This record gives sequence, structure tokens and C-alpha cells, in this order.
Amino acid sequence: MGFQFTRKLTIEWGHCDPAGIVFNPRFFEFFDWSTALLLQAALGMAKRDLVAAYGIVGIPLVDTRANFLAPSRVGDEIEIASCVATIGRSSFEIDHKLFNANQLAVSGHEKRVWAGRDAQTGKLKSQPMPEDVVRKLKGV
Amino acid sequence: MGFQFTRKLTIEWGHCDPAGIVFNPRFFEFFDWSTALLLQAALGMAKRDLVAAYGIVGIPLVDTRANFLAPSRVGDEIEIASCVATIGRSSFEIDHKLFNANQLAVSGHEKRVWAGRDAQTGKLKSQPMPEDVVRKLKGV
Amino acid sequence: MGFQFTRKLTIEWGHCDPAGIVFNPRFFEFFDWSTALLLQAALGMAKRDLVAAYGIVGIPLVDTRANFLAPSRVGDEIEIASCVATIGRSSFEIDHKLFNANQLAVSGHEKRVWAGRDAQTGKLKSQPMPEDVVRKLKGV
Amino acid sequence: MGFQFTRKLTIEWGHCDPAGIVFNPRFFEFFDWSTALLLQAALGMAKRDLVAAYGIVGIPLVDTRANFLAPSRVGDEIEIASCVATIGRSSFEIDHKLFNANQLAVSGHEKRVWAGRDAQTGKLKSQPMPEDVVRKLKGV
Repeated sequence: MGFQFTRKLTIEWGHCDPAGIVFNPRFFEFFDWSTALLLQAALGMAKRDLVAAYGIVGIPLVDTRANFLAPSRVGDEIEIASCVATIGRSSFEIDHKLFNANQLAVSGHEKRVWAGRDAQTGKLKSQPMPEDVVRKLKGV
Repeated sequence: MGFQFTRKLTIEWGHCDPAGIVFNPRFFEFFDWSTALLLQAALGMAKRDLVAAYGIVGIPLVDTRANFLAPSRVGDEIEIASCVATIGRSSFEIDHKLFNANQLAVSGHEKRVWAGRDAQTGKLKSQPMPEDVVRKLKGV
Repeated sequence: MGFQFTRKLTIEWGHCDPAGIVFNPRFFEFFDWSTALLLQAALGMAKRDLVAAYGIVGIPLVDTRANFLAPSRVGDEIEIASCVATIGRSSFEIDHKLFNANQLAVSGHEKRVWAGRDAQTGKLKSQPMPEDVVRKLKGV
Repeated sequence: MGFQFTRKLTIEWGHCDPAGIVFNPRFFEFFDWSTALLLQAALGMAKRDLVAAYGIVGIPLVDTRANFLAPSRVGDEIEIASCVATIGRSSFEIDHKLFNANQLAVSGHEKRVWAGRDAQTGKLKSQPMPEDVVRKLKGV
């Protein structure tokens, strides 16, 4: 298990739906930003600066999933603990655990690709992650 | 494979992020509403009326996932084809395929539970789906 | 009163809050996209093409407001009628009227600026709208 | 000028649009939640508890507006200073000032109504605010 990042947030009125619980797409918003903060903490620069520093186009999400175990409601104070779960040659995976009152409420997962642009087609194309990025994501 | 429902929509400016592509949580918004429309078409009533008609509390999402295969951008006309993929005793699964210019761009999946309330604990609890609901979701 | 554009949409589950009514920021999403569609219909090209065609940076929103007269709920079929209300030298205003069951439910208003970039400071700067744009926004 | 409440937040990737700046409806999300926090701080209870404590149905927004003076971008640390601007018999107004790098970037305004339900029609109806609520909103 690699680099870890934890943050707290409060569930807002506008995060919730007519059932009074968080509308599921909001959890993917929370996870997306947790990943941005994790990467910034691990790599020491904001996502936008990674592009210039490493000559990549971005770190697009290719796969995501979530299991919803317990509902969260307006005013709930939650904690999202994120960690780098696996590191491949040109991609990595992040696990997000969202706790509400110390109970695991949502378990999320992302797979992201270290992506440049193919010189010929102009399309996004995965490329090997630099050694220092791998080392930092491992948190060692 | 069971009941199917297809709809079209246009990607809006506000669906997209600074990379100029749809921000991933928006796809879960699209899928959530496609499921509501599929259920309404299959069962012949709006989601809110199901609650009264069948004595349930709701049909909460317990699992979801998506694979992102190609980006979508503002102004793109997309099609979402949804179908009931599997039907269990008290839950069912829906597959969503989002096409952009006839290319599969996002593949999504939801598992939802037919849920009542436990008389003793007051918590949500899965319960067997009525025969007519199963038959209608099968689309036969 | 200038160019007019009307569209219909259905209120979705995810547009609504725990009170069961549309969460107010969603109306500004609706209006933003109605403006994009109105401009596309009036000027004959998508917002992103305006930038190239007219050498502008964008048409940023500088002022907006809304009055909420009646609530809208999931499943409601609404109509948004938008029109160019006033046209200045380098800005214009758009009125949005959102009807629910033929009743005016929200009245919205936007002021947008025709903006280029100041050659010296690099900042956005309003500039005179071309004659053909003015004529098309007037709808004459 | 009445009760004041200030909070800080960071602009997230998902708050921004393809122009790289905050999509305007997000500011109304920010203001809505700032108002909830201001009321909670002023009245000493969460919005949902007000309903039971004062026999009201809610505090619906009837009018809102915003002026956009400078753009905000991903990673920007902003501060929102909110205050009760005027207090009527059955409504009150809140001003929101959003600062980015100590510069006023958005100026927002809300009018909210203290609302019960009309015994005959069942519709929302403004009602006089209790004396202690008025006093607390005045911040005296």
C-alpha cells in the first residue's frame, strides 16, 4: 500500500437528493478531488503543474467504481481516507474509504493512466511513469 | 437480457471540466436518470409512485462502476442505451452504454436493491421483488 | 425585444434537494445552457466557434439574478423561454422565463459581455459587438 | 448590518468549466451553504432543527443575484464573508462577498422568507419571524 491522504468534509444540503441522502454522483466529485489532493501531497505539485514538469497531457480516469454501504445526510461530518493501492508501469489505482461516524459508508476505487499524446495520431496514450513518480506514489 | 431504454442528450458546457471533457461524476448523473426513465417505462409508473404501489422505501444503488473509453465534449450528441442485465430475488443490475458518434465512450453498471424497511430496526432491508415487477423488468 | 429561444426539459431526481424541489443553482445551469443554445440559434454557430470567427475570448457572464415564484419537482416538464432583452455597445442582456404547468415558476436574467483580451495587460476587456452580431441578436 | 459568518474553501477541478474558471452555478452552491452555516451559527441550531423548533416549513430563497468581478480557478483559496444585510417582518436578506487573493471576485445576494404553511391552501406562506430570531440575526 502506497501514499495515503485523508481529509474531512461536511455533507451539504445541495449534496443531497429528495431521499435526504447524498446523491451518488457527489461521491465521485469527492473522490476526484481527494485524488487531486493526494497527488499534490505525494508529488509536491498541483495537478496542473505535473503536466509541465513531466511532459504529460494528464492523468485521466479510465475506471471507477463505488459500493454504497450506509447513507450520509446533510450536516454529517465525514472522513475520506485515500491511498495508492497498486502501481503499474503506466497506471495506478487509488482506494477511497469514506467514513461517517467511524463507520465505512462508501468504498471507492479509481484507476488512472499516466498519459501523453501519441506523436502520430494525436490521441492520448499511456506512457511509463517516471521512477521518481513511482517512488513517491509508493510513499517510500 | 431484459427491458431496454435508450435516450439521447447533448453535452453541455457545464458538464465539462478544464480539460474540456465531461467531468466524470456527470456520467453517474446521466446513468441515474436513465435508470429512472427505464424503470418508469418498464413498470408504467414514476419512481415516486412505486413506493406507494409496492410498499417499498426505494430502490437504492448499492454498487456502481464505469469504464471511460473515449472523451465527450460540449455540443456532442450522445446516446445512452440502458438495459436490465440481471435480475435477482431482491436486486437487479442495469448496464448503461454511452455512445458518442456511434462509438462506445462510457460503459456503466449499476446494482440496485428492492428495499423496504425492517420493522424492528427501522433500517432499509432488501425484500423479494414482486412477480409482476420481475416479469416487467425481464421485458417479456 | 430581440431573438427568442425556447426549450423544454424534465426535472430530474438529481436536480432536487431534500425538500423535494429543484436546488436553486440548477436553475443557473439551465439558464446558462439556454443562453448557449439561443446564441447558437441566433448567430448560426456554436459558442466555441464564435471565438475563432470573431476574434473574441468569450462572452462571460457579469451579472445574473433570479426570482423564484413556485417550486419545481422531479418529473415536472418545464419550458424555458429565453430572449435577448437589451443590446448595448459591448454587452447584452437575456431574460429567461421558466414555466411549470404554464405557470411562471422562475424568472431569470443575465448580463453578458462581448470580451476580447487587452493587448497590454492580457486581461479580459469588453469590446464593441460587430454589426452583424447586433443585428442577429435583435432578431431582425 | 447583522450577524456575520466567514469561511474559506478551495476551488476544485470539478467546480471549473472548459474556460478553466468556476462555472457560475457553483457560486450559488457556495452561497447556499454559507447561508446554512450562518443561520446555524446565529440561531444555534441546524436548518433542519429550525423547522421543529419554530413550527416553520423552511426558509426558502425567493430572490438571488450575483455580480462576477474576477474569475476564480482550480486551487484558488477563497474566502466567503456573509452577513445579514436587512431584516424585514417575515423575510431577511444576506450579502455574500467572495474574495480571491484579497480581491472581491463575486458579490452575491439572497432574499429568504420565514415560511409556514397556510392552513387552508396548504401552500407555503410567509409568517412573522419570532423576536428571538430577529434579535439573533441582528447579531446583538
